[in-house]
Amino acid sequence: MTDCLGSRLYVALIHYPVIDKNGQIIASAVTNLDLHDIARACRTYGVAGYYIVTPLEDQIRLVKRILDHWTTGAGARYNPKRHQALELIRVEATVEAAAHDIAHIHGRRPKIVATTARRHNGGLAHRRLRAMLAEPTPVMLALGTAWGLCDGFMDAADHILEPLKGAETYNHLSVRSAAAILLDRLLGDRN
Amino acid sequence: MTDCLGSRLYVALIHYPVIDKNGQIIASAVTNLDLHDIARACRTYGVAGYYIVTPLEDQIRLVKRILDHWTTGAGARYNPKRHQALELIRVEATVEAAAHDIAHIHGRRPKIVATTARRHNGGLAHRRLRAMLAEPTPVMLALGTAWGLCDGFMDAADHILEPLKGAETYNHLSVRSAAAILLDRLLGDRN
Repeated sequence: MTDCLGSRLYVALIHYPVIDKNGQIIASAVTNLDLHDIARACRTYGVAGYYIVTPLEDQIRLVKRILDHWTTGAGARYNPKRHQALELIRVEATVEAAAHDIAHIHGRRPKIVATTARRHNGGLAHRRLRAMLAEPTPVMLALGTAWGLCDGFMDAADHILEPLKGAETYNHLSVRSAAAILLDRLLGDRN
Repeated sequence: MTDCLGSRLYVALIHYPVIDKNGQIIASAVTNLDLHDIARACRTYGVAGYYIVTPLEDQIRLVKRILDHWTTGAGARYNPKRHQALELIRVEATVEAAAHDIAHIHGRRPKIVATTARRHNGGLAHRRLRAMLAEPTPVMLALGTAWGLCDGFMDAADHILEPLKGAETYNHLSVRSAAAILLDRLLGDRN
């Protein structure tokens, strides 16, 4: 069954609305390696799709140019494996547009699961989310860039996922590392 | 006990000897984000140290310049959390020099555990390595850059770790993602 677990899971990398170092809401810049690293992890773990969410026109164009290079341009010939990963990426201006796209594919609106490095009361356990992925409702796992998703986003989400916990109080994983670990916990072979 | 599990685990990011796309042995270039992402994951999971292994003088200078910026320069003031992660980094020209350094700290030579995306007979299970971390002998977890560690390195290692397995046959995680997932499997809170 592990092979099918990811077929209703979507990852969304949110560039707006997120907070900066001072807690102000900003639109962050897209970074090339967030596209590559997270797409490769999504492909490895069998995730159904990977949304880049940004309202900024120039950033949308940048993502499309990177995707063109690796999926139809010189990059596709240089490294076909990268093509297989990056073809999972779709770009949307808002989370709502991404949710609408997923609803169109599955005939059901996805549950939106927000992630955070901060502890919340009543956070959704990773194993509970893993169990939810066997149910018919699709899930959008929302990851914040910069200093993370803003409070308004968290409040509007269907669930807030329990934060990852290491050995110490230090908890400052990159969004790329957090995405990889979460996919392994949700979809990895546990044998 | 989870808090202490990482105290004898060292991560080594190997830039030589690794292979290129065509299987030739090369010395790869150090990349800034490999330093940051893996150091942050090491710090989060309580790893004892993170070695950057490269024989190239200019690359050694580059790593030291990056570390200076974040641990004593403007970066340390801008983001003290990054300082706490990057101070785990040491640069050595060879794996042997890194092993010698670890032996000096612990009074025992480390077991060298090589990682690969390819399946090997008799690979060390992740849970077996997790159990080894409770024993007095330190462990160096060696991660290859570029297209991975060369056969000679694998043959000389004390163990070869079982590859990570996702849902499909595609298995092309970035070294940053693989490092994060392995640290979570070896040191993460399993409750």
